[in-house]
Amino acid sequence: MPVLDLQQLNDFLAEHFPQGEQYGALESVGPGTAVMRLAVSAQHLRPGGSVSGPAMMGLADVAVYAALLTRIGPVPLAVTSNLNINFLRKPLAGADLIADARMLKVGRMLGVGEVYLYSGADAARAGTDPVAHATLTYAIPQ
Amino acid sequence: MPVLDLQQLNDFLAEHFPQGEQYGALESVGPGTAVMRLAVSAQHLRPGGSVSGPAMMGLADVAVYAALLTRIGPVPLAVTSNLNINFLRKPLAGADLIADARMLKVGRMLGVGEVYLYSGADAARAGTDPVAHATLTYAIPQ
Amino acid sequence: MPVLDLQQLNDFLAEHFPQGEQYGALESVGPGTAVMRLAVSAQHLRPGGSVSGPAMMGLADVAVYAALLTRIGPVPLAVTSNLNINFLRKPLAGADLIADARMLKVGRMLGVGEVYLYSGADAARAGTDPVAHATLTYAIPQ
Amino acid sequence: MPVLDLQQLNDFLAEHFPQGEQYGALESVGPGTAVMRLAVSAQHLRPGGSVSGPAMMGLADVAVYAALLTRIGPVPLAVTSNLNINFLRKPLAGADLIADARMLKVGRMLGVGEVYLYSGADAARAGTDPVAHATLTYAIPQ
Repeated sequence: MPVLDLQQLNDFLAEHFPQGEQYGALESVGPGTAVMRLAVSAQHLRPGGSVSGPAMMGLADVAVYAALLTRIGPVPLAVTSNLNINFLRKPLAGADLIADARMLKVGRMLGVGEVYLYSGADAARAGTDPVAHATLTYAIPQ
Repeated sequence: MPVLDLQQLNDFLAEHFPQGEQYGALESVGPGTAVMRLAVSAQHLRPGGSVSGPAMMGLADVAVYAALLTRIGPVPLAVTSNLNINFLRKPLAGADLIADARMLKVGRMLGVGEVYLYSGADAARAGTDPVAHATLTYAIPQ
Repeated sequence: MPVLDLQQLNDFLAEHFPQGEQYGALESVGPGTAVMRLAVSAQHLRPGGSVSGPAMMGLADVAVYAALLTRIGPVPLAVTSNLNINFLRKPLAGADLIADARMLKVGRMLGVGEVYLYSGADAARAGTDPVAHATLTYAIPQ
Repeated sequence: MPVLDLQQLNDFLAEHFPQGEQYGALESVGPGTAVMRLAVSAQHLRPGGSVSGPAMMGLADVAVYAALLTRIGPVPLAVTSNLNINFLRKPLAGADLIADARMLKVGRMLGVGEVYLYSGADAARAGTDPVAHATLTYAIPQ
């Protein structure tokens, strides 16, 4: 069972990311996992209708952060130390983004996770090709 | 001499990044280099006054993209394929961010650049520690 | 079905990586996937018995390269353009390394894949924590 | 002044990297900086005479590690947690590799550095294009 449930995590993120709706909303969590959805709107788009890189990176960051918090609890001071993202395909115009995140390691000092981003509101993730993949490292305050 | 001068690049970015002011403004360009400044405002901040990760990543991305365009000209379809960023220090509250970007390689298919982000309006970069460092790869359409 | 079968891939790697046994041996391949095993020996170790970083990086590189070749065929000139690796846990002393690789994207110009490295000869991967995770990009010659 | 001088660092590396000659030799150090040279030999080559990726990654890793040690002293347990490398150009056949490393941050828990790899024994680095660029993170034991 995750240390924090979905409601607790949403409350925590709302408090610490008040502009959080621009990063997406949690849909589900498990032990070391989190699924978020970004309802793409004009602020996330580039000309031509493609979702901007920063919108994808923000979603990836918050999704893995949520996955980390399911393991270590509400630690507001955990900070991202590294993000590596590969942009794989152009997201569908007008479609939501789904982030599927899980921790690869939660140590005493560092947490490392990965996240797949999918395009499309009903992205049955199995069998769908991701639009981006990212790995992130968080430094956990002692 | 860069292929595009400062005015041409600013015009190009304004057209292709209409929300571009949230990513920063070009201050100077050279052959394969670009300096951008992000006037940090409420939309870029996290609680506590720290600049958000996506704001830094967006600035890094546009700065290296501008550096690339000084070499290949106005190619709107060059797309970011990889971004790796290390967050090094907490930016100063209320201070602008300065991005100092340069290309490491501009090939036929790929452009690779790096960028240092500094905190502080008058960041005399020499001798100042960066708040973040990123490398980016762009795929150049054939 | 992969473009190349296991025997064809092993022959190809033996020809193009004559020091290849230091990088590992293919165990199985599928369409866009490859599993390799590195029989760890003295040349791969650091004092204390830990597998060296370069040994892990070499294994990760060749495993994803093999996964790429299952999709594009024997292209000796595909070159690694980016590698990002997170070292997660100390490998077991004296144990083989298993690399489980798959492509995230195979485009016309770029191939991107990821790979999990596991420690232990009989690593039933499901349920075992990886010792490292890497993403790699290859530029495919035109 | 660096915490360790060139001789002390070479002794330390020789003890902790007994296969270290395959990773290169220190040429100079400063506070947070290190220059290493890899005398390329058959074991580092791929067919066609190109230096192998793992040889470059090993050199990058040890060079930044040495740069870190000039700041924190002989800490054998500092471990690489992340490496990101961009391969930019093909190294010259038969030429040494030079690594020019410096720390971007040395914190209590994490050290982050970058390194440029150059090809050619007499690479006057200024004005020469690097063959690779890497950033590395080390976790410093508490």
